[in-house]
Amino acid sequence: MSNLLIAQSGGPTSAINASLSGVLSAFFNGREYEKIYGSRYGITGIFTGEILDLGDIFDSEDKIKRLKSSPSMFLGSCRCKLPDPGSLDFTEIAGVRLTAEEIYGKIMDFFHANEIKTFFYIGGNDSMDTVLKLSEYVRMKNDDISIIGIPKTIDNDLPKIDHTPGFGSAAKYIATSILEIAYDTSIYRIPSVTIVEIMGRDAGWLTAASALARRFQEAPDLIYLPEVPFYNAKFIEDVRNKLNKKRNVIVAVSEGIKNEDGKYLSENDSIKDRFGHGMLSGAGKYLETLVREELGVKVRSVEINILQRCAGHLASKTDLDEAAILGETAYRAGLERKNGVMASLKRVPGKNYYIEYCTENIKGIANQVRNIPRSWINERGNDVKEEMLEYLRPLIIGENKIEFDEGLPHYQELIKNI
Amino acid sequence: MSNLLIAQSGGPTSAINASLSGVLSAFFNGREYEKIYGSRYGITGIFTGEILDLGDIFDSEDKIKRLKSSPSMFLGSCRCKLPDPGSLDFTEIAGVRLTAEEIYGKIMDFFHANEIKTFFYIGGNDSMDTVLKLSEYVRMKNDDISIIGIPKTIDNDLPKIDHTPGFGSAAKYIATSILEIAYDTSIYRIPSVTIVEIMGRDAGWLTAASALARRFQEAPDLIYLPEVPFYNAKFIEDVRNKLNKKRNVIVAVSEGIKNEDGKYLSENDSIKDRFGHGMLSGAGKYLETLVREELGVKVRSVEINILQRCAGHLASKTDLDEAAILGETAYRAGLERKNGVMASLKRVPGKNYYIEYCTENIKGIANQVRNIPRSWINERGNDVKEEMLEYLRPLIIGENKIEFDEGLPHYQELIKNI
Repeated sequence: MSNLLIAQSGGPTSAINASLSGVLSAFFNGREYEKIYGSRYGITGIFTGEILDLGDIFDSEDKIKRLKSSPSMFLGSCRCKLPDPGSLDFTEIAGVRLTAEEIYGKIMDFFHANEIKTFFYIGGNDSMDTVLKLSEYVRMKNDDISIIGIPKTIDNDLPKIDHTPGFGSAAKYIATSILEIAYDTSIYRIPSVTIVEIMGRDAGWLTAASALARRFQEAPDLIYLPEVPFYNAKFIEDVRNKLNKKRNVIVAVSEGIKNEDGKYLSENDSIKDRFGHGMLSGAGKYLETLVREELGVKVRSVEINILQRCAGHLASKTDLDEAAILGETAYRAGLERKNGVMASLKRVPGKNYYIEYCTENIKGIANQVRNIPRSWINERGNDVKEEMLEYLRPLIIGENKIEFDEGLPHYQELIKNI
Repeated sequence: MSNLLIAQSGGPTSAINASLSGVLSAFFNGREYEKIYGSRYGITGIFTGEILDLGDIFDSEDKIKRLKSSPSMFLGSCRCKLPDPGSLDFTEIAGVRLTAEEIYGKIMDFFHANEIKTFFYIGGNDSMDTVLKLSEYVRMKNDDISIIGIPKTIDNDLPKIDHTPGFGSAAKYIATSILEIAYDTSIYRIPSVTIVEIMGRDAGWLTAASALARRFQEAPDLIYLPEVPFYNAKFIEDVRNKLNKKRNVIVAVSEGIKNEDGKYLSENDSIKDRFGHGMLSGAGKYLETLVREELGVKVRSVEINILQRCAGHLASKTDLDEAAILGETAYRAGLERKNGVMASLKRVPGKNYYIEYCTENIKGIANQVRNIPRSWINERGNDVKEEMLEYLRPLIIGENKIEFDEGLPHYQELIKNI
């Protein structure tokens, strides 16, 4: 018999544990392996010896079900970029400086000592880089170990996949928040502008998802994405035009909007903190100040912040189900001895939303960013088009039925930090 | 036959429409009146003629039920303080300058012309001031009109009531958010401090509610309330002590924390905007900078912002039910021809949570702030005691079952703004 290893990496989402639950379900159903181990804090657990026996921890269907509905990352995460397999540079892993050969050697030693046949890495762009490098190293050594990526990122910016797990839940949270903010701001007679800053430094998918709120409210009125250069004067003109037609204007802006020189709005160093240092103000705060100074209207900025990636109580059922199936898809790819692939999903063209699961070669996924097609954004660059809404709508469908206990969501208990 | 008038005032909450639904239910069940009118934008609708026939709009139980679950304020709001009945000052109402006599005269004319027997005003401290003044004017004129207050405020700072409608839902949202933030911040190996800024400029109830998250997580680690003076040096010492014991420290702070001179932390004018003006940074942002400079640790601040008062999707069932019953209580008080009272609720002492409904004289409610008893806060002023948790726990129990449509909460449609 042989064993499996799984780890999680990158930023948290509401769906990353659902993918872990999918692999666990497949493991218990298939019984093709003896053990499934979890490495704590991404691959760094291999270096520190923080390895869990997940079959022991998740010994009932109820526990796996609770895990599926729990946000954040049960195994913990790391932000760790592996060196190129042939590199001579030192890389620090869990506080220790190691050469590339030491790093890959240590990982392979661990795999061999524990009879790991397949290693699953759930993560985003950087994590897929680890899958790429590790799979190439395995191939170089002619070893029969499968290295398989399972995608997740709220940013939805991975190539070779229709959309990424975690995105649908974040999109649902953002659209609901915009909707509720539209209700909130509607109550006074006086004109107002509310600027909502949404995550996504490189791609505007999350900010675009705010447009889903239009199902019930005329909000947001304006949408600014990193895919299109941002001009202060044009923005002020847009807001002024909206205020001429409508009393309470709601603007959705990506934290990653940039001016025509490609500089983040938040990089302005004219805001000083109490120590006189330049301060990152955030795009929302910056635009709030701009609107106040230029239009003299009541204005407020709201930063949705980390709540958009960890709000398990408002996760999309579609998202969690797909994330779990991607875990199962990765498990099957391991059985088929695939190496250097990522579990993926494709949308089948047609009237109804239908998804097919597959694997994709990890090359061309790692270190790439998939942006919103320019043709899905209007010409002026202040809104999205119907194509975008058609793409987004199915991803937020369905509610995650979580158990509440004493009025609060009862999520999977975390392992105590050491 | 005679008629009723109802209006809403102050900031939005998740429960203020539930109180409106309670009055509507009682109106339809009792049939003691012919019409129930709604004044748009608080009392200002009387001056602009924006009056709705609510019996026409809410002509089915389903519509009243949806209204009960919808956040924000169906009728709209105002921030309007009436002059003293005998005053000679001018007051602006809906853009028109009027004398006290003109204002009260106009209101009484409206009541008489429309055979209004009872006027309900749902709101917080300022709105209860309107109830007080209007009820005194009615009494002065020997008129048989009942002026009745229905409480609401997320701030929970009204006297003569155990807790205010809207608070329980906001508390549930805050505790859930803190819980989810605790999950989110737990994933990395490196130490971090997360500062969560919560509403409440004068009273710390909302910030104290963050402690409910301890049902499932060791968070928040520190709680700072406006009831206790705030000292930077003590705060830094507190955070340092926590970091010695625990990797990811979460701090809940009220936006209203003040230094020993009674000055808001956010009033520091050392943060300059791009135009060189002093900028209100918010307590969270201020403390984020402080921690970064003093402790050099990874730090982030999260402002929960207006989402905490309008997140109908996470409303407390207990809160909405109580808000509706307070509406019915007010309706009964009108039948009994009470004038100058507020519908209220009392907690019956005992092991189980049990509420009794009553009315209270409006005097001693208006313009008062009820703070957290000092004995419910620990001596060092950085946490709450068990008494506070016992008080809070029942208020967030139960989930508001809202209907979702295409993945989004389907709330009561708003009236189009003119």
